[in-house]
Amino acid sequence: MESIPAQIPSVHGSSGGNRVAIIGASGYGGLQTLRLLREHPFFKISFLGGETSAGQHWSEICSFLPLDDDPLVQDIDFEKISESSDFAVLSLPNGLASQIVPELIKRNVRIVDLSADYRFRSLSKWSQTYVHEAQKYRRSDHELCKEAIYGLPEWNQKSISKADLIASPGCFPTASLLALLPFLNQGLIENDGLIIDAKTGTSGGGRNAGQKLLLSEASESIAPYGVIGHRHTPEIEQEASEIAGREIQLQFTPHLVPMVRGLLVTVYGRLRDPGLTAEDCTTVLNAVYRNSCFVDVLPVGTYPSTKWVRSTNKAMISVQVDTRNGRLVIMCSIDNLMKGQASQAIQSLNLMSGQQQETGLPLLTFYP
Amino acid sequence: MESIPAQIPSVHGSSGGNRVAIIGASGYGGLQTLRLLREHPFFKISFLGGETSAGQHWSEICSFLPLDDDPLVQDIDFEKISESSDFAVLSLPNGLASQIVPELIKRNVRIVDLSADYRFRSLSKWSQTYVHEAQKYRRSDHELCKEAIYGLPEWNQKSISKADLIASPGCFPTASLLALLPFLNQGLIENDGLIIDAKTGTSGGGRNAGQKLLLSEASESIAPYGVIGHRHTPEIEQEASEIAGREIQLQFTPHLVPMVRGLLVTVYGRLRDPGLTAEDCTTVLNAVYRNSCFVDVLPVGTYPSTKWVRSTNKAMISVQVDTRNGRLVIMCSIDNLMKGQASQAIQSLNLMSGQQQETGLPLLTFYP
Amino acid sequence: MESIPAQIPSVHGSSGGNRVAIIGASGYGGLQTLRLLREHPFFKISFLGGETSAGQHWSEICSFLPLDDDPLVQDIDFEKISESSDFAVLSLPNGLASQIVPELIKRNVRIVDLSADYRFRSLSKWSQTYVHEAQKYRRSDHELCKEAIYGLPEWNQKSISKADLIASPGCFPTASLLALLPFLNQGLIENDGLIIDAKTGTSGGGRNAGQKLLLSEASESIAPYGVIGHRHTPEIEQEASEIAGREIQLQFTPHLVPMVRGLLVTVYGRLRDPGLTAEDCTTVLNAVYRNSCFVDVLPVGTYPSTKWVRSTNKAMISVQVDTRNGRLVIMCSIDNLMKGQASQAIQSLNLMSGQQQETGLPLLTFYP
Amino acid sequence: MESIPAQIPSVHGSSGGNRVAIIGASGYGGLQTLRLLREHPFFKISFLGGETSAGQHWSEICSFLPLDDDPLVQDIDFEKISESSDFAVLSLPNGLASQIVPELIKRNVRIVDLSADYRFRSLSKWSQTYVHEAQKYRRSDHELCKEAIYGLPEWNQKSISKADLIASPGCFPTASLLALLPFLNQGLIENDGLIIDAKTGTSGGGRNAGQKLLLSEASESIAPYGVIGHRHTPEIEQEASEIAGREIQLQFTPHLVPMVRGLLVTVYGRLRDPGLTAEDCTTVLNAVYRNSCFVDVLPVGTYPSTKWVRSTNKAMISVQVDTRNGRLVIMCSIDNLMKGQASQAIQSLNLMSGQQQETGLPLLTFYP
Repeated sequence: MESIPAQIPSVHGSSGGNRVAIIGASGYGGLQTLRLLREHPFFKISFLGGETSAGQHWSEICSFLPLDDDPLVQDIDFEKISESSDFAVLSLPNGLASQIVPELIKRNVRIVDLSADYRFRSLSKWSQTYVHEAQKYRRSDHELCKEAIYGLPEWNQKSISKADLIASPGCFPTASLLALLPFLNQGLIENDGLIIDAKTGTSGGGRNAGQKLLLSEASESIAPYGVIGHRHTPEIEQEASEIAGREIQLQFTPHLVPMVRGLLVTVYGRLRDPGLTAEDCTTVLNAVYRNSCFVDVLPVGTYPSTKWVRSTNKAMISVQVDTRNGRLVIMCSIDNLMKGQASQAIQSLNLMSGQQQETGLPLLTFYP
Repeated sequence: MESIPAQIPSVHGSSGGNRVAIIGASGYGGLQTLRLLREHPFFKISFLGGETSAGQHWSEICSFLPLDDDPLVQDIDFEKISESSDFAVLSLPNGLASQIVPELIKRNVRIVDLSADYRFRSLSKWSQTYVHEAQKYRRSDHELCKEAIYGLPEWNQKSISKADLIASPGCFPTASLLALLPFLNQGLIENDGLIIDAKTGTSGGGRNAGQKLLLSEASESIAPYGVIGHRHTPEIEQEASEIAGREIQLQFTPHLVPMVRGLLVTVYGRLRDPGLTAEDCTTVLNAVYRNSCFVDVLPVGTYPSTKWVRSTNKAMISVQVDTRNGRLVIMCSIDNLMKGQASQAIQSLNLMSGQQQETGLPLLTFYP
Repeated sequence: MESIPAQIPSVHGSSGGNRVAIIGASGYGGLQTLRLLREHPFFKISFLGGETSAGQHWSEICSFLPLDDDPLVQDIDFEKISESSDFAVLSLPNGLASQIVPELIKRNVRIVDLSADYRFRSLSKWSQTYVHEAQKYRRSDHELCKEAIYGLPEWNQKSISKADLIASPGCFPTASLLALLPFLNQGLIENDGLIIDAKTGTSGGGRNAGQKLLLSEASESIAPYGVIGHRHTPEIEQEASEIAGREIQLQFTPHLVPMVRGLLVTVYGRLRDPGLTAEDCTTVLNAVYRNSCFVDVLPVGTYPSTKWVRSTNKAMISVQVDTRNGRLVIMCSIDNLMKGQASQAIQSLNLMSGQQQETGLPLLTFYP
Repeated sequence: MESIPAQIPSVHGSSGGNRVAIIGASGYGGLQTLRLLREHPFFKISFLGGETSAGQHWSEICSFLPLDDDPLVQDIDFEKISESSDFAVLSLPNGLASQIVPELIKRNVRIVDLSADYRFRSLSKWSQTYVHEAQKYRRSDHELCKEAIYGLPEWNQKSISKADLIASPGCFPTASLLALLPFLNQGLIENDGLIIDAKTGTSGGGRNAGQKLLLSEASESIAPYGVIGHRHTPEIEQEASEIAGREIQLQFTPHLVPMVRGLLVTVYGRLRDPGLTAEDCTTVLNAVYRNSCFVDVLPVGTYPSTKWVRSTNKAMISVQVDTRNGRLVIMCSIDNLMKGQASQAIQSLNLMSGQQQETGLPLLTFYP
């Protein structure tokens, strides 16, 4: 991760290609990707691949989102993909991506991977965190893990532009890091005792029916899950530690909220200088994100609603301070399927191909 | 607050009366109270009073919850109330209750007050916290503030039984204190750095239409509000400090969740002995609440959903520990209108009249 | 079906037993039944049986609804059931019930069946309607089909009291028939051109996860399903035809509504006498249901909300007339899992055992 | 209304101007209009006017939808509007629009009015329907009522292109007419006995807080309202009668659904030729709408969900037939604030200014 937020001008004119393969199109991540690329002014969808849906026409999978010529979803054939496509966006289950990425990279396809497979610099860290997947899929791609760039464009813009493999961040890490990094980077908060209380809509659980994601079960209810052991904890800790320059252990607790889309993190920490005010902290945020078109820093006393960023690539951040004791609360809302997943991936794709990062990405919600 | 949780046998045979006045029946708190007392095996509703709804028949206010003989909602007449009633449950706006309580107490009506007016031992603390109300209503009832008993029956059972005035707790303080007090009481956690991240359904905002409580605005969204300055913070701090034996400052942040009923608190702290496990902490909770029929301590790894306690007087608590660093997460779910408001008030009323505390109170939800 | 609504006094003192087996307890129907019987003043749960959940302790299936002594869910053993139980409530998939009912009846267990297996007087009608189930399960219990009583107590009270086998109605037929029968019975509306537009919450689809019942898919959406061909159509038509005295064909269209519980039917028809007003029609309803404690006829201009009947055994009915042309709209709301399923079954059970039909059944919701 | 659906080529090059005033920007209709015009490739927002919000900067009204230069909302000054703007979109309360439209028309501002004020050809019909508004506002603009064009572009494209005043349809009439008109126009269904059962999200009730629109009240509930007497009935009847060539009386019943956006109508009628199948009827629809980019006719057996059209200008239509008796069910889903209101208005605006009608209008939802 770049230690200072980059606001470099967009590097026009890299590889030139605009043909994008979407692998894994019928889940929520794939659907958003497809929806965004379908209207993108630069990219063209050149290949539609799937594991379970191969052999079906697109209209059979998704009647309400018509594609021109109603393409067939194809098997994941490395040759076909590399012939047809300059880029690939992978929206596959964790573990499966690692079986495909090395082959595509070999064939000069540049990749944005939505799975967790390349988010850890160390393969063994991945194996400890994704135990079940590590048992199912054999991996020895240590080098790729090291080379992959963590796709948080507000902090890694330059590296993303030149990368061949982007590990697009998880939804919770995206919101958590956007909130935390400015303060860690500038040494304004204690590294110790950081707490992230996170809330997500049910679409974060994916499209495969699980009982707890039924409307009957999830509606009219809120509950914690994955307390202490959630897989996004080490991901957040890795990136936060890198910026802070020393190892950080934090508490991360996700909650399931009865809504479709939206993700909010409420981050608690302690200021090193207890004399700082909420206004001071807001000034810090404004400085860090002044060139980031997708991050809105809210005025003190205005708190981010997930509804304000629905179906956009925006993050909204607000900060408040308890002046009695110098404790601070940083809040950040995003759309879990957009900035938390698919539209952030396309933000990376834009950078990789030398486009302006906001090309083809929604900035405004339809309210309410 | 009693420093050790009381599991004393119910003191049968105190005052004897069973006639209850409900003052302020058309809001959500009043509606629950009325609903519960209407089917209560001991109490009878003897008077229905209201400020804005006086002069209307009950059926005009609430056609779907019929009462026998369709009573008239009456003006708040102290003489009439004291003649007709042994007890009064007050469900009135903050500040207004203080204009009524002294008069009723004088006339030997025993009171459970749902407002915040008598929750603070000190009237000046109340005036600092409820600034707007303190400007509107003049108060000099210092003595009543001191004498009022904080109506959290799991911790104050003995005092409640004998009290003439109960200040029924706020919804957030109820869940927060049920989670925190066992650990504070036994000195198991640091007093410093406590964080309460709270989530509530919209009914906590009451029945008077405000734009942010519209379904169009609140649905499909989660957002923080009242960050740092929320009025329930000093209420929680007062009770927590008393149990801890020294002043506690904590961070309390409420969030509005798109659901009607339900309240969850996620409490973060640090164990004094970092060697304690989640199982150890669960044992502590089980010991403290073993005689509390309304508190369910969940096994380690099961986390409380608000749906499990919907329309009941239950609280469900679970605890988890980060063994890397001895940090602990305590979660507690309640129904904000029941254990967080009306049914807890009746739990107190049961104790005041010498009934078993669970008399007439729902223990099981209709799931889902 | 009894051609005139019965308001006979409850026939106390029939068989005497109060031991009830619940077969199929982990679905939504079973959960409600169990919840209701657990607090019932007369009945005791004597046996808990299941197909998929056999061998598990209850607490493993449903941690939040504790049962005394945490019983084991048992295999469906006819001998054990008949030894332990006077009655059985069957909450099993369609088709499976038919494999169990004859054996239990043989052993003198009186049954309330929540499935559709005995709702049709004719087995061949069942086979035409439940094609898939008819292929899976062989049936030759013609006689039982003829003998079974359709368990709509507002219309069949006397027969239910004496029956050994109750086919408890479907959720849509319950609301539809309560709305329609008074007018058909008295010949007030044309038999032709009747339309039922029905709306249900997702719990009507059961607890087995299907993609379209996910919160992510069903929330923020309404859509029709099963248009023309829904299986409840012939069930409604059979009962309506019987009351009308001639064959009725009607249009029934269900819609999936983004809520957990609740079912509303809006029934459209044409008055034979176009001079009748909404008040006249309301008078008719009041006369028919004046002794039915579970049916509330609303005043003209008040329309039934499903929220008003949530978690109760109530039905609320309202009627409106277009005086320009004598067309009428009858609206009826129920809780699909209660009056539409489990609590109506217990209403029948009460009658079968000589209890007052309202024994142990909730009449009032907790609003909101 | 044009008696045959027009598929004329877009008439490029009419008036030329692209400056649009938005009058009434802070309600839901205004918000959508503003959101759409802000990113429109042709139009520019030239004036922001309001009644209650005049004098405030836009950011004070709506912090989450930033506008360049944060304009001031201005008083409704006819001169200023006509100097700054070629077109005006009026999103004002019923009745108020009629006080403004004549003045703007006089000053050569072409208008799309979202209110009901010019939807009736006859002013007296309006006065009978909008009784309360007719008492509050004096009107004598009979001529304007007659000249105004009903802004349903799928049926009135040619007239809209040339009009100076568009009465943009109500949300319920839009969906109802799109479903009904093809069958009425071709004489395929009986004019008599038509029934429209409609379902809408809460945003249809506007942004001014009313108790019944609170999440606490409207969530987990469905209920009818405005049965028989709803104001959209005569609007639908007027347009349907005109196409059918004789007076039509129909039953229209709206229901409030617990969701923010989305509107579904389920229309019931009787085929003149009972031999027609669902496939035949689908063919009819396909023929009528084959050039309408905003109307998707679904294959037989696929039913429209409101979620599929969320935040788009699309309508989805499906038809099913009961072959036993020739009765037909036509279903149509739209977004009530888009095709049902603001984006349809801009569809008209596009036509008025000689643009392609789809310019700047969303065709695809972000699912789910």
